[in-house]
Amino acid sequence: MEFLVEIEVRWPPNGDQAQKELLLAAEARRARELAGDGVLLRLWRVPGRWANVGLWEAPDATALHDALSSLPLYPWLDVRARPLARHPSDPHRAPS
Amino acid sequence: MEFLVEIEVRWPPNGDQAQKELLLAAEARRARELAGDGVLLRLWRVPGRWANVGLWEAPDATALHDALSSLPLYPWLDVRARPLARHPSDPHRAPS
Amino acid sequence: MEFLVEIEVRWPPNGDQAQKELLLAAEARRARELAGDGVLLRLWRVPGRWANVGLWEAPDATALHDALSSLPLYPWLDVRARPLARHPSDPHRAPS
Amino acid sequence: MEFLVEIEVRWPPNGDQAQKELLLAAEARRARELAGDGVLLRLWRVPGRWANVGLWEAPDATALHDALSSLPLYPWLDVRARPLARHPSDPHRAPS
Amino acid sequence: MEFLVEIEVRWPPNGDQAQKELLLAAEARRARELAGDGVLLRLWRVPGRWANVGLWEAPDATALHDALSSLPLYPWLDVRARPLARHPSDPHRAPS
Amino acid sequence: MEFLVEIEVRWPPNGDQAQKELLLAAEARRARELAGDGVLLRLWRVPGRWANVGLWEAPDATALHDALSSLPLYPWLDVRARPLARHPSDPHRAPS
Amino acid sequence: MEFLVEIEVRWPPNGDQAQKELLLAAEARRARELAGDGVLLRLWRVPGRWANVGLWEAPDATALHDALSSLPLYPWLDVRARPLARHPSDPHRAPS
Amino acid sequence: MEFLVEIEVRWPPNGDQAQKELLLAAEARRARELAGDGVLLRLWRVPGRWANVGLWEAPDATALHDALSSLPLYPWLDVRARPLARHPSDPHRAPS
Amino acid sequence: MEFLVEIEVRWPPNGDQAQKELLLAAEARRARELAGDGVLLRLWRVPGRWANVGLWEAPDATALHDALSSLPLYPWLDVRARPLARHPSDPHRAPS
Amino acid sequence: MEFLVEIEVRWPPNGDQAQKELLLAAEARRARELAGDGVLLRLWRVPGRWANVGLWEAPDATALHDALSSLPLYPWLDVRARPLARHPSDPHRAPS
Repeated sequence: MEFLVEIEVRWPPNGDQAQKELLLAAEARRARELAGDGVLLRLWRVPGRWANVGLWEAPDATALHDALSSLPLYPWLDVRARPLARHPSDPHRAPS
Repeated sequence: MEFLVEIEVRWPPNGDQAQKELLLAAEARRARELAGDGVLLRLWRVPGRWANVGLWEAPDATALHDALSSLPLYPWLDVRARPLARHPSDPHRAPS
Repeated sequence: MEFLVEIEVRWPPNGDQAQKELLLAAEARRARELAGDGVLLRLWRVPGRWANVGLWEAPDATALHDALSSLPLYPWLDVRARPLARHPSDPHRAPS
Repeated sequence: MEFLVEIEVRWPPNGDQAQKELLLAAEARRARELAGDGVLLRLWRVPGRWANVGLWEAPDATALHDALSSLPLYPWLDVRARPLARHPSDPHRAPS
Repeated sequence: MEFLVEIEVRWPPNGDQAQKELLLAAEARRARELAGDGVLLRLWRVPGRWANVGLWEAPDATALHDALSSLPLYPWLDVRARPLARHPSDPHRAPS
Repeated sequence: MEFLVEIEVRWPPNGDQAQKELLLAAEARRARELAGDGVLLRLWRVPGRWANVGLWEAPDATALHDALSSLPLYPWLDVRARPLARHPSDPHRAPS
Repeated sequence: MEFLVEIEVRWPPNGDQAQKELLLAAEARRARELAGDGVLLRLWRVPGRWANVGLWEAPDATALHDALSSLPLYPWLDVRARPLARHPSDPHRAPS
Repeated sequence: MEFLVEIEVRWPPNGDQAQKELLLAAEARRARELAGDGVLLRLWRVPGRWANVGLWEAPDATALHDALSSLPLYPWLDVRARPLARHPSDPHRAPS
Repeated sequence: MEFLVEIEVRWPPNGDQAQKELLLAAEARRARELAGDGVLLRLWRVPGRWANVGLWEAPDATALHDALSSLPLYPWLDVRARPLARHPSDPHRAPS
Repeated sequence: MEFLVEIEVRWPPNGDQAQKELLLAAEARRARELAGDGVLLRLWRVPGRWANVGLWEAPDATALHDALSSLPLYPWLDVRARPLARHPSDPHRAPS
């Protein structure tokens, strides 16, 4: 099942720069793993914000939560996840 | 450039059923054409609503408007389009 | 997977009374079927409104949409579905 | 009487880790007690957030407040409680 | 248990005047009955609106819903009910 | 003239506990005085929140402001005051 | 006591033109009377809208409601009235 | 003085097509006149909506209102005008 | 041109008391100057809040910004300014 | 492609004054560069706020993000970017 996930990072403007860079590098690694596992399908930046929109795949909301809370930046994230149903006109719709 | 487009259909509950079916069939045909042209990339239903979330590709907002306003149901649509920027951790990111 | 579904009925105050009663009876029958199928788990009224809050069970958002759109009053419903993840302190949590 | 209670935890991302773990353990114990007393009926996680949705049972709003304010994390909680009325189509509705 | 109930009347400006007057008279009669039964405790007008704020007393949300839905104008009402808990500094608080 | 006043206390979760207890005791004393003066008529807790809803009586908004800003917790309060007009169906309405 | 009153006129775009003109003329007459009575102190247009912001003077919210509901366009008005308290730096503040 | 004006057209989807085309043609003519008079400086479409964002120039809000209310579609417009102040980093800023 | 300006002061509850008193005195002095210059016409308190509503007069938004940003408390102010157009029924309307 | 970008600066009122002045000077320099590159077309102040509205030109949302995130104040900015489509009545519309 797919989810549309909007994430905003609540990092303080004057936060510790070294901690930020370590977390960013870890975040990118974890994102690659989640992509490799087929959990993170697409990811876009919201222009002008430290925020993203993502397309996620998970068996259910519990598995989605596990994936999201595995992100190193998780304590700073404001996350909003919406469930997506299949649409008969979806170009990439797999045959049922 | 990709856009995230959320569409809600404002069709009156007691609207004309024959008109509705004609429009729905035309809408599905137009969606297939837009998918074939590489404009409509993905489409999902919002569960429980006559509404969808879509991933659209267009050179700019003017071309996106032309695509959206070509939908037969356009006069009944409440559309909200957001611009998407590329994210370095996007799994499907094309090489730059 | 469980969903929290909030439904508001948009029936016009001066709407046809006979149509309303037929739809209400059909709605109650369909709700019983969905309960029998294990899809509708709980249902509450929002006091003072023609609205309800429900706990629904479905394999994914697509199956949830099919259940919700099978309600006879569906064209008049304003539906908002939220995905629910399991909580370790849920009293009714099944063993994993 | 049942209440739908939505709780968001406002814990600072860089908060004291030891205090957080003590509070979390105490919170889980108190939740078990409230479940054992028949006050906390169901609890779900909001995917991607440190937040939950719960179904609570209390004689009235005063008793509900006493239960909620007995939670060890209470000073950090943003709580929204809504009253629930019985619905004739509730599958688990007790005979009146 | 007390509830704070805010009610907005959604009557069309060009609605039938005779129907409106009949409903208003019936509404006032029903309000007096609910006051006599100790269900409607206080009622105020929101200045400049066809709207009111009321203090209602009911054993639970189900009884409150029964009282509210017994109002003749009920199909035109937009109702929002909030539960009230006892406050130790309430001047009219009965001894416990 | 009566006012409906909603108050939310913005006290930091890790605030000074001794200061908090002193302020709470002073707040309760001031509330009793305002009740004795006929300014604070009713007070309820919002279940699950450090917040209250109150019914206040004051000659005008200036006098109401003086009463509210005399509360010891005033610097921490988020206050929203709404004017209330008399309703002909108010059970406690004094004869005009 | 002064009130800040924001009024939006909900007149249908295709409404009856003759009725509209009669109401507008009556509205202007009633506004002049209320100004002459010292109830309507100032009135501004919200640019681009059929809406206004006004400064009203009334002994209390009940008298304000009587004034507002005496407007011929009242059934079409969406009104929001806020109470104003005196400010020590108000240039036009009368000596107390 | 410049204003940022956002306009949404509230035309009913099943509205009269001939009236719509006449109004659209008149609207375009009036827009050209306002552009020629230096009142309408820029105009953009909101992609996917019958809505626009515009940059308008007028001596004050009264003159802006006169310009906006001279639009043939005015009764169907939902307009929101915001005042703009000069910014020292504005590339097109005239010398003061 | 007149503007309706709503100002909320974001001063921390535990902020420095001496700094606060100095700023308040300076703010009152500056308000008197702006009143003397015919820029600040009226000022009201929002009851229960450290907030005010004001009627300001300035040639345009740039001059209004200069006046507002000259307030000593400016860095702590949350300001919302709305343009006001003349209304034909304004009691204090100067002849045009 | 043009974008309408609204920016609010979240600088703490008691923030470091020297850091603020350095950042402001750097911000103005960067704005001039972006104007020289044809990326920043227009910039206005929101009266009474440390906020601006700007008209930006960029090939797509990715390039817009690069420009916005190159601003020295970027970590303190709350940015909202909206895509703009061409309007046939835009006075400055280039021939297509």
